[in-house]
Amino acid sequence: MNAINKYSEQIDRAIKDIMIPDNPAGLYEPIRYTINSKGKRLRPVITLMGCDLFDGQISRALPAAIGMEIFHNFTLLHDDIMDKSPMRRGQPSVYKKWGINSAILSGDTMFVYANEQICKTDQRYLKQVIDIFNMVARKVCEGQQYDMDFENNQEVSIADYIRMIRLKTAILIAGSLKIGAVIAGASESDQEKIFQFGEFIGIAFQFQDDYLDAFGKEDVVGKKLGNDIITNKKTYLYLKAMEIATGNTRKTLEQTYLSNNEDPEQKVNVVRKIFKQLEIDKLAREEMNKYFHLANKNLEEIGVADERKSDLRNFARKLEDRNH
Amino acid sequence: MNAINKYSEQIDRAIKDIMIPDNPAGLYEPIRYTINSKGKRLRPVITLMGCDLFDGQISRALPAAIGMEIFHNFTLLHDDIMDKSPMRRGQPSVYKKWGINSAILSGDTMFVYANEQICKTDQRYLKQVIDIFNMVARKVCEGQQYDMDFENNQEVSIADYIRMIRLKTAILIAGSLKIGAVIAGASESDQEKIFQFGEFIGIAFQFQDDYLDAFGKEDVVGKKLGNDIITNKKTYLYLKAMEIATGNTRKTLEQTYLSNNEDPEQKVNVVRKIFKQLEIDKLAREEMNKYFHLANKNLEEIGVADERKSDLRNFARKLEDRNH
Repeated sequence: MNAINKYSEQIDRAIKDIMIPDNPAGLYEPIRYTINSKGKRLRPVITLMGCDLFDGQISRALPAAIGMEIFHNFTLLHDDIMDKSPMRRGQPSVYKKWGINSAILSGDTMFVYANEQICKTDQRYLKQVIDIFNMVARKVCEGQQYDMDFENNQEVSIADYIRMIRLKTAILIAGSLKIGAVIAGASESDQEKIFQFGEFIGIAFQFQDDYLDAFGKEDVVGKKLGNDIITNKKTYLYLKAMEIATGNTRKTLEQTYLSNNEDPEQKVNVVRKIFKQLEIDKLAREEMNKYFHLANKNLEEIGVADERKSDLRNFARKLEDRNH
Repeated sequence: MNAINKYSEQIDRAIKDIMIPDNPAGLYEPIRYTINSKGKRLRPVITLMGCDLFDGQISRALPAAIGMEIFHNFTLLHDDIMDKSPMRRGQPSVYKKWGINSAILSGDTMFVYANEQICKTDQRYLKQVIDIFNMVARKVCEGQQYDMDFENNQEVSIADYIRMIRLKTAILIAGSLKIGAVIAGASESDQEKIFQFGEFIGIAFQFQDDYLDAFGKEDVVGKKLGNDIITNKKTYLYLKAMEIATGNTRKTLEQTYLSNNEDPEQKVNVVRKIFKQLEIDKLAREEMNKYFHLANKNLEEIGVADERKSDLRNFARKLEDRNH
């Protein structure tokens, strides 16, 4: 069994043990529904990996790992309202199933749960861990705000986009790793390096999400593709294409992409064709690999024996090679 | 200058000092708007009073006091969405001014701010203070859920109602006091007593809100009255009246109160007349006084010199006598 599977089983067990009262049912049912829905458990897994890298005791990092997972789930409840997403992990989103008010209030309560878990951290590291957690939580909110702002903003640059995904996605991954490292007693300089590793991995991860949505194979990815294109999302692919394209190509791309009246399938085909023509798929992969490379560079610089790094190295490679 | 004014000035100064970034403006503007709007600052004031009661250093309790105030403000942002309240403290509510998504996300960020402030508490008391804060936050969410549930529930008892206001209102007041006491190094038994004092004060406070909405003088209370009646809110007054009333009076009350079609002014007049006829105003005041009495009993039992209690005693008396 590889490290990811081993850890994610531990995490699932710990999540099952969380006490969720029966009443008020309207508050706690959506929470039970959410935390038991099968997500990737990516964030808590890497908290444990970050701890193990520095030879820390996994069990000590487990509550904070669960806290990061519940925090992530809380943000999904609220994001799904804001983004009007009807589905999440193959089932109706909370706001779709129970209404906006439930998704708000059960979400808030999940934020409390996340705090409670974080606060189970050993007194010795508590303050440091909470400070990272609060910093991450604030940045994630900022990222979501920028993401919403982009919808009505015609002047989004690639730098804006990278700042947004850094805040919305990458810092949560970076913080999850760093918290593991802190609990393992890593040095400040190594804490910083693992944070950077996580930040670059997180950005690469989002680039890949964008890439797969446009160029993945539907039966492999396991969900309907082209969604970013259909919902006019200003992804790296679109922003890069708009940077490169000229003349009629640029005009067609912009008009097609930002339109809401097109036949969805037709729209995806037109946009995908322009992307290919401009070699955006190749550029996106190059950009992604750049971030994976930066991530790995930070990992290599961390001051622990090489063999301790193999789990995280495999993890990064797996992310890099993923086709779903 | 009395203690309340002195403390609330300190709190206003501390709130002004909180660093609120300029960008993303869509996230931080509603936060600035909210925390600078002039509320009663009731919760942070009593945190400082709870600290002073046990001869603690006020400045040590200040960050946690601010944390309780910001937490309270965060709940208002989300409650106003759920309750569709267009106004708050004499100005448009955040959801009305900036939309639901802003009120959700800026609210979430205020929860982070509250956590950040709480976490500035001296390491020595940090864990205890956070545990109280998390407990309070969870209970407030439960209370809001029960409050929402009541709208569609025909079988709300007075016991249900008291549980709801205990969770939604009283525990936040109780927790605010207790946090002050903890930071002052109060004994566990005194912490418990000040918590109970706050819980009873909080329940009495809500009873009085209900009472004033129906029987207050509009020019003294300073806002449109009868709102609970117009919005069919199952307050203590209504529930008690339904408990006592029989025959046609009961039928008229129920039909009028739960109807949405009545002329608002007419509705308030009919309901108020039935309340008076059943002497609900008198019963409500008696019930309220019972809770004030229970609160004061707990205050008297606290093991500090009598003169130290005068601020909280005055505070309770002021609440009891308030007509707005």
